[in-house]
Amino acid sequence: QIQEIATKAKEGILERLDAGEIVIGDGGFVFALEKRGYVKAGPWTPEATVEHPEAVRQLHREFLRAGSNVLQTFTFYASEDKLENRGNYVAEKISCQKVNEAACDIAREVASEGDALVAGGVSQTPSYLSCKDKAEVKAAFRKQLDVFMKKNVDFLIAEYFEHVEEAVWAVEVLKESGKPVAATMCIGPEGDMHGVPPGQCAVQLVKAGASIVGVNCHFDPDISLETVKLMKEGLQAAKLKAHLMSQPLAFHTPDCGKQGFIDLPEFPFGLEPRIVTRWDIQKYARKAYDLGIRYIGGCCGFEPYHIRAIAEELAPERGFLPEASEKHGSWGDSLSMHTKPWVRARARKEYWENLKPASGRPYCPSMSKPDGWGVTKGARELMQQREATSEQQLKELFQKQKF
Amino acid sequence: QIQEIATKAKEGILERLDAGEIVIGDGGFVFALEKRGYVKAGPWTPEATVEHPEAVRQLHREFLRAGSNVLQTFTFYASEDKLENRGNYVAEKISCQKVNEAACDIAREVASEGDALVAGGVSQTPSYLSCKDKAEVKAAFRKQLDVFMKKNVDFLIAEYFEHVEEAVWAVEVLKESGKPVAATMCIGPEGDMHGVPPGQCAVQLVKAGASIVGVNCHFDPDISLETVKLMKEGLQAAKLKAHLMSQPLAFHTPDCGKQGFIDLPEFPFGLEPRIVTRWDIQKYARKAYDLGIRYIGGCCGFEPYHIRAIAEELAPERGFLPEASEKHGSWGDSLSMHTKPWVRARARKEYWENLKPASGRPYCPSMSKPDGWGVTKGARELMQQREATSEQQLKELFQKQKF
Amino acid sequence: QIQEIATKAKEGILERLDAGEIVIGDGGFVFALEKRGYVKAGPWTPEATVEHPEAVRQLHREFLRAGSNVLQTFTFYASEDKLENRGNYVAEKISCQKVNEAACDIAREVASEGDALVAGGVSQTPSYLSCKDKAEVKAAFRKQLDVFMKKNVDFLIAEYFEHVEEAVWAVEVLKESGKPVAATMCIGPEGDMHGVPPGQCAVQLVKAGASIVGVNCHFDPDISLETVKLMKEGLQAAKLKAHLMSQPLAFHTPDCGKQGFIDLPEFPFGLEPRIVTRWDIQKYARKAYDLGIRYIGGCCGFEPYHIRAIAEELAPERGFLPEASEKHGSWGDSLSMHTKPWVRARARKEYWENLKPASGRPYCPSMSKPDGWGVTKGARELMQQREATSEQQLKELFQKQKF
Amino acid sequence: QIQEIATKAKEGILERLDAGEIVIGDGGFVFALEKRGYVKAGPWTPEATVEHPEAVRQLHREFLRAGSNVLQTFTFYASEDKLENRGNYVAEKISCQKVNEAACDIAREVASEGDALVAGGVSQTPSYLSCKDKAEVKAAFRKQLDVFMKKNVDFLIAEYFEHVEEAVWAVEVLKESGKPVAATMCIGPEGDMHGVPPGQCAVQLVKAGASIVGVNCHFDPDISLETVKLMKEGLQAAKLKAHLMSQPLAFHTPDCGKQGFIDLPEFPFGLEPRIVTRWDIQKYARKAYDLGIRYIGGCCGFEPYHIRAIAEELAPERGFLPEASEKHGSWGDSLSMHTKPWVRARARKEYWENLKPASGRPYCPSMSKPDGWGVTKGARELMQQREATSEQQLKELFQKQKF
Repeated sequence: QIQEIATKAKEGILERLDAGEIVIGDGGFVFALEKRGYVKAGPWTPEATVEHPEAVRQLHREFLRAGSNVLQTFTFYASEDKLENRGNYVAEKISCQKVNEAACDIAREVASEGDALVAGGVSQTPSYLSCKDKAEVKAAFRKQLDVFMKKNVDFLIAEYFEHVEEAVWAVEVLKESGKPVAATMCIGPEGDMHGVPPGQCAVQLVKAGASIVGVNCHFDPDISLETVKLMKEGLQAAKLKAHLMSQPLAFHTPDCGKQGFIDLPEFPFGLEPRIVTRWDIQKYARKAYDLGIRYIGGCCGFEPYHIRAIAEELAPERGFLPEASEKHGSWGDSLSMHTKPWVRARARKEYWENLKPASGRPYCPSMSKPDGWGVTKGARELMQQREATSEQQLKELFQKQKF
Repeated sequence: QIQEIATKAKEGILERLDAGEIVIGDGGFVFALEKRGYVKAGPWTPEATVEHPEAVRQLHREFLRAGSNVLQTFTFYASEDKLENRGNYVAEKISCQKVNEAACDIAREVASEGDALVAGGVSQTPSYLSCKDKAEVKAAFRKQLDVFMKKNVDFLIAEYFEHVEEAVWAVEVLKESGKPVAATMCIGPEGDMHGVPPGQCAVQLVKAGASIVGVNCHFDPDISLETVKLMKEGLQAAKLKAHLMSQPLAFHTPDCGKQGFIDLPEFPFGLEPRIVTRWDIQKYARKAYDLGIRYIGGCCGFEPYHIRAIAEELAPERGFLPEASEKHGSWGDSLSMHTKPWVRARARKEYWENLKPASGRPYCPSMSKPDGWGVTKGARELMQQREATSEQQLKELFQKQKF
Repeated sequence: QIQEIATKAKEGILERLDAGEIVIGDGGFVFALEKRGYVKAGPWTPEATVEHPEAVRQLHREFLRAGSNVLQTFTFYASEDKLENRGNYVAEKISCQKVNEAACDIAREVASEGDALVAGGVSQTPSYLSCKDKAEVKAAFRKQLDVFMKKNVDFLIAEYFEHVEEAVWAVEVLKESGKPVAATMCIGPEGDMHGVPPGQCAVQLVKAGASIVGVNCHFDPDISLETVKLMKEGLQAAKLKAHLMSQPLAFHTPDCGKQGFIDLPEFPFGLEPRIVTRWDIQKYARKAYDLGIRYIGGCCGFEPYHIRAIAEELAPERGFLPEASEKHGSWGDSLSMHTKPWVRARARKEYWENLKPASGRPYCPSMSKPDGWGVTKGARELMQQREATSEQQLKELFQKQKF
Repeated sequence: QIQEIATKAKEGILERLDAGEIVIGDGGFVFALEKRGYVKAGPWTPEATVEHPEAVRQLHREFLRAGSNVLQTFTFYASEDKLENRGNYVAEKISCQKVNEAACDIAREVASEGDALVAGGVSQTPSYLSCKDKAEVKAAFRKQLDVFMKKNVDFLIAEYFEHVEEAVWAVEVLKESGKPVAATMCIGPEGDMHGVPPGQCAVQLVKAGASIVGVNCHFDPDISLETVKLMKEGLQAAKLKAHLMSQPLAFHTPDCGKQGFIDLPEFPFGLEPRIVTRWDIQKYARKAYDLGIRYIGGCCGFEPYHIRAIAEELAPERGFLPEASEKHGSWGDSLSMHTKPWVRARARKEYWENLKPASGRPYCPSMSKPDGWGVTKGARELMQQREATSEQQLKELFQKQKF
């Protein structure tokens, strides 16, 4: 009962955004929990909600403390087809329903400890990539939605879609609930994998019923904001209204191709030198705000201190600091009591704002060429379409290309 | 009672090392908890043991899962003089004793969940830097030791000492307990801040009663191993025997001066591009093992996945993998089921072993000049001695040097 | 008489290109002679033809030996208005006519020593930038053309134009001579300073009478080839025919803005780390050839060994090596007799083709932000238009921008 | 006759140095002429003195104009054994004597045009490396010396020695002439290839009769100055007096091993990104001067503008600028008339002094690992000793090492 009361007392996502409030999202669960030992890279599935709820709960708490106003249920890639597909990675068979229910319960428990809403999330499905049967794909989303309705989440997010077609199907399903729907695609300025530009993606999503649109994952903050800008312009041209949202990577990706960081040779186990600093995030938060984005969060790579950096940068506008700022001096001012004077000299905004941090890796380059470049255009398109390319066919294609 | 039984059943640290076992240490608490929102950079004090025990407990658990055989009590900088010194940062005055007791309880609780020992730790004190009064400094250590004895930790660690003189005092106090004592200094190959070379430091520490000696913090794995090698040679020359231990940074620091990463311009809020990968750690673990080091762990920057990388690299020698390897394919093999063939092509050792990860930061250099270089030698020595240099004096010294 | 005979015996530029021959241009005179001590950076004027003809002659000879089929008269920035404008830099007043005449004589002398044509060249004028009076600008070109006709050069080049309007005027004047005219602009893929895209620039130049069109200077080989590709596409769309030409920088400029390397902070005295290798040039030559370009040369930064690299790369197509290849083993094979085996191991194509050369500058970044970025758009446009912006006005604009 | 008079009128090298004058050396012939097309990398022999005297003469002139007070005869690697060894590279057999004589004549001709002395130079021989027979090696030096005496050079330089033993033999031979002798080794702070430290090398060379000692080639200015500093300290400790000399590379080599830039993977055809700027050279000249070095020049990579930078930096001490400074504004001041205000803003010392020039190569690292690292210590020593290691043996050694 306490939870219900707490929830009822909170303003909904649209009330907040309509009132001009800044809503701070949370960070990246799969990457953070991979490093903590609870998620397997490759499948990236969220069975930890059942196997190790304490680890998921703790991460939610850290984001809440850092200033998140939304706790997304840890249901990324938790559609039944995905979980089955990757089933051999799951220690013991855990049902799709259990994973989704546990995710809702944990998110709600932590959200009730502060001023945060719970958002149920769905993401792209293997079904779409393999068969593209609308009914089948929609059924997968509906299965997750049933859990979200039973657990009474506050609103819904369709995120991490590479194809606007599938994203629209997801929004259509989620809209059946009557709850507000946000939709974000993991695309860059070049648009979705079929070449639909960001502006058009946004228009289609809003027409399908999304009240909030934007991007998540795949690109760094700068590139992601470029994409959201194109979405904004597309909506304006179409005279449509929607709130804007951005949840980028916390990795620098100036060298990405159309499919984002997945194609970088460093993905996913060598991305460390690309991790953005808290100061990079403060610049991102300011830039996002200036662009008119009011739902500002992060995706893979975002740790609690990155979310706190959003909250600290926008504290003047919001009028308050997050709880975790008790343990953080603004712009490094906690260094003012360091024993060494030259470290004390770093306790100021100008210092951190202008620092160009070194990598300590003199034998490494600063940029990479994305993989798949050596592949012929034909082969690449084939693979991107995920058409029935057998392993043998690919091997031949690769050998031909000295891939 | 369960805890006591579990503890009794475990072999002690020296039994393990004497038997030739590899003992895996844990990672860096202050940096990990700073990013999670529970520790303040600057003071770096561990009052979180009282304020947020769940956060400390969770981090212990992650290290245990990752393979740690030792859980160090989170008592870094928890001497009374340090806590008082930084007291204005602690929300409500929390007694030194409470912080240390809570640290012991949490570590013991988690250690009992697996095959790990609890080590009580002391570190360098402000008293030494300001007054150097032997009795006073020893009293500070003894105060912490009293708690460790009451809570019956398994063994003791004196760590993060810049001056061998103070480290020797710490070892002398800890030896009073009758428990095994390990001692690590935060020095590089150039030796301690008074110029005592690593070999001599090791000799003094062993003569004072340490059974395990080595280094922690301040330098990257490569540099730290160089230092331990010098310690080993010093002990050999002196015909002394001791176990070797290394707990380096998880940051690349090829450009450090004598005082390590503290002097790097990126310390402590811009170190991201320097974070080592899991593959760097596997190389470190192998190299440490080959050098004869058998207590292998990490310090600042070490996250659970870094500790897991030690355990995975040395799995052939140890005969088992840590629990967290359930969620990790050796050398990236969990990528073998990725949808994109060029990502699947990364599921092999050669790929990750040879990757030179890019920083994604083309406007940043690869190395930095440590701070304090612009300062005259005189001024620097003055400051290092922490003699009564007033702020005004320093300001003048700096201005003279265009610092 | 010998010269005339030699010239007559040679096939003209259009005969060569029409026959499908590859014509190799020469390299950059102002940069090479600046480093040799005969040209002043800033004014970049060619009075050396009168002051130190032996130095100019020697450089021509080196390019001839390296494989150049065209020796351009060293008449860059040798219009009367430019020479007067920069007159205070010229030790003793040397007339515009003398500079141009000497340039023709030296080029002809050296050209007669091998299979090379002499091309008289004109470039952008201060008159255009300050007044834009068509008659006045054309008069400046005509003055240089008179010398070229008197000295009977083989053909004419209008090069280094930032505005297609001025380039068209130059072509119109040069066409009066009846000799073949080539025209290259110093633009990138974004087009000329008024925003005319490359394709349209090419169309206008060909319509004005140019038989050969392309780009020179301002951008690196890769970017320059992109621009020529756009020119080629523009001509195809307009159903126009012309030969293509490229004479890029021998500096890497991935970070340039619209105005090219002038705006890079390293211009002109810190460009060393950007100098391209001979292997970069071999890749450029191949790529240019594959794109259908048959007049392939270089501009600033191109030294004789860079020109030789073009000739060596295209030796299979041309059937012969240049004279200077007597002193160069293809793909480093002259290293096969080195005393050290690991240097001998470098005597192969794969080695040099794949080498990623280090800068030896760990404290420097790999890319720069072009200058002028800190300037407001308004101020920048003002400055680019070179309208009567007083020093005082600019100073104020800059201060406002913390430039 | 004019030449003789001119020479007689000039003060000798020791008179100048004894009087405290700064003597500016010249730059690197083999690298400059390789790029100009007259020297073959690998053999690096100077037959161009006979084949293309105009090219050698022009380079001498450029150095003279740039401020060189010494023109070294282009006789590097012109010992008979070397020329024969590499004979197949020389188009037509040109006798050792002819090469050396022509070198003397050209140097003298140009020296007479200004205030420069001619220095005859000898360098390390293949004979030493293969047989080490003292008589045979000395005979090779004596053969070159005979030419130098016949042509009456002003003084003698023994340069580019990796082993002090051979350098001493060279000095002993050159001393027979009665002319002043300078001796420079191509070593770094670690000393010669047999491990003789720089201080001891200097002592041996002075005891053998050298009046001037120092280093040339193999390392960058900073490392070379470190080495000369060690030589200076060695001489002081031995209470010996000699003038100091430095002629380093114009390439940054922070990543070199003991044998210098030869082992860098970029040697010799990918060194471009390492080329030092004129500003780097001004810093070098100042540092060399402050260290007490009075013979300051350069080696491989030094172009005329680098030598001019030495002369400009030390103009306040010398009281005059070199001729080539007519075409160079101090610290970039010739940019003050540029059309673009942001380029004009670069016409100042602070700008160029502090510029960290970018490489424009984001896919390249900043440092390299020297070759030969993959080779076992045993194999490496074998190879360094140049013992009769057959190609087959080496191939096997390499294969074993995956070299």
